[in-house]
Amino acid sequence: MAGHNGAIPDRYAALVKRKARKESGLFLAEGRRLVEEGLKSECPCELVFVREGFFGKFPETDALLSSAKTQVLSARDFDKLADTEQPQGLIGVFSGTGLLDDAPTHPWLPALFDVADPRNMGTIVRSADWFGFGQIMLGESCVDPFSQKAVRSSMGSVFRTRFVLCEDLEAQLASYKGRYRILVADLDGSDYRSFKGGPPSMCVFSNEAHGPSEGIRALADGIATIPGHGGAESLSVAVAAAVFMAALR
Amino acid sequence: MAGHNGAIPDRYAALVKRKARKESGLFLAEGRRLVEEGLKSECPCELVFVREGFFGKFPETDALLSSAKTQVLSARDFDKLADTEQPQGLIGVFSGTGLLDDAPTHPWLPALFDVADPRNMGTIVRSADWFGFGQIMLGESCVDPFSQKAVRSSMGSVFRTRFVLCEDLEAQLASYKGRYRILVADLDGSDYRSFKGGPPSMCVFSNEAHGPSEGIRALADGIATIPGHGGAESLSVAVAAAVFMAALR
Repeated sequence: MAGHNGAIPDRYAALVKRKARKESGLFLAEGRRLVEEGLKSECPCELVFVREGFFGKFPETDALLSSAKTQVLSARDFDKLADTEQPQGLIGVFSGTGLLDDAPTHPWLPALFDVADPRNMGTIVRSADWFGFGQIMLGESCVDPFSQKAVRSSMGSVFRTRFVLCEDLEAQLASYKGRYRILVADLDGSDYRSFKGGPPSMCVFSNEAHGPSEGIRALADGIATIPGHGGAESLSVAVAAAVFMAALR
Repeated sequence: MAGHNGAIPDRYAALVKRKARKESGLFLAEGRRLVEEGLKSECPCELVFVREGFFGKFPETDALLSSAKTQVLSARDFDKLADTEQPQGLIGVFSGTGLLDDAPTHPWLPALFDVADPRNMGTIVRSADWFGFGQIMLGESCVDPFSQKAVRSSMGSVFRTRFVLCEDLEAQLASYKGRYRILVADLDGSDYRSFKGGPPSMCVFSNEAHGPSEGIRALADGIATIPGHGGAESLSVAVAAAVFMAALR
């Protein structure tokens, strides 16, 4: 059912901001592939914005869209909402409420501390999905996994992941200590491969510029290190998380 | 020795373009940390542009700069050359000629095919440096490792890496077959961990959207796959390369 040309309703235009996403539980997913993945996922889709001229080029996408609520926008209006330089013509509005979990239930979870770059966030979500880690803990100072850039970098994995959003990651980790082994990735610990197997575990990955907080390090049952062999001072947090997750499989 | 305020000479302003970088052998490295790494490296530094107001805040950086040729620019001129949104105040002009090797000499090399994203390129250079792979083969369709974004994403590892730039990666790989084992990362091969050790090897990592070319696949002595356990269709090429390189250490 295709709506008429018209401006973007304020409640959707506001979704470029984190506050509005948090209040509404909605987020934007931009791009043909992403919208397709969203429509095939369990995430409810409220609306898909379609750039004028999009329909008719991708028959399979058109078919998928026929069961969604759509609104065609002028190129000008569409591009205002778009976050990419060359918009592909689709922006879906999805509800992420079902992607939020109150508590960790999986036996192994990556936990992210202070990950500030949306591309790193999305890449970690994508890697976690690849390696079969379906639930991620996110500290309060992390970038929003539902930002447009993070969603796009996740390449659709955001729709298959469950997030435990912590208001105080350190306190949360402390409350699970004992039930979970708390691992912290940092530069001066044991070889990360030595933690394969073992009890249910959370492993904290931190912004590589600042590392984990003292409080988080103090909670660690183990410090996990990916040994370096060259001159680089650190790995990207997205790479470090993926290398660690790969070693657990 | 600090030069006077003035405009950016054309030959340096042109370095935002790949063609000018190729012709001159020069590249730009932006940011305090990057310029410091460059000055400490074996790469000759032609000039460092300094944003007005920068001197006096970081005594150690000022000391390092005292032995370099510098030119102070107005904020307006500086920001024209800068690639970041919040420039830190230093842009170094370095010669990358010494970073180019004619032929592979290391026993294990990552080879990149069609890696188009400068951040992925820089991240791979950084990871290779971390895991001790000091030489990288680059296919002709790859993004320039000396672009401002790639240099910045490498976090300085670009200064410590040697690049073999191929005009025809497929032909190059073919010419080394026999002397090197040719591995190709793709979705339908053997577990990547099975290739640890073994003879001198090159491993081709490709743009994840399109994968390796048929010609490159045909050259492979082995197809290396990172097994997936979730729903993601692929890993980021930067993550895949790092996971594979980590497994070799």
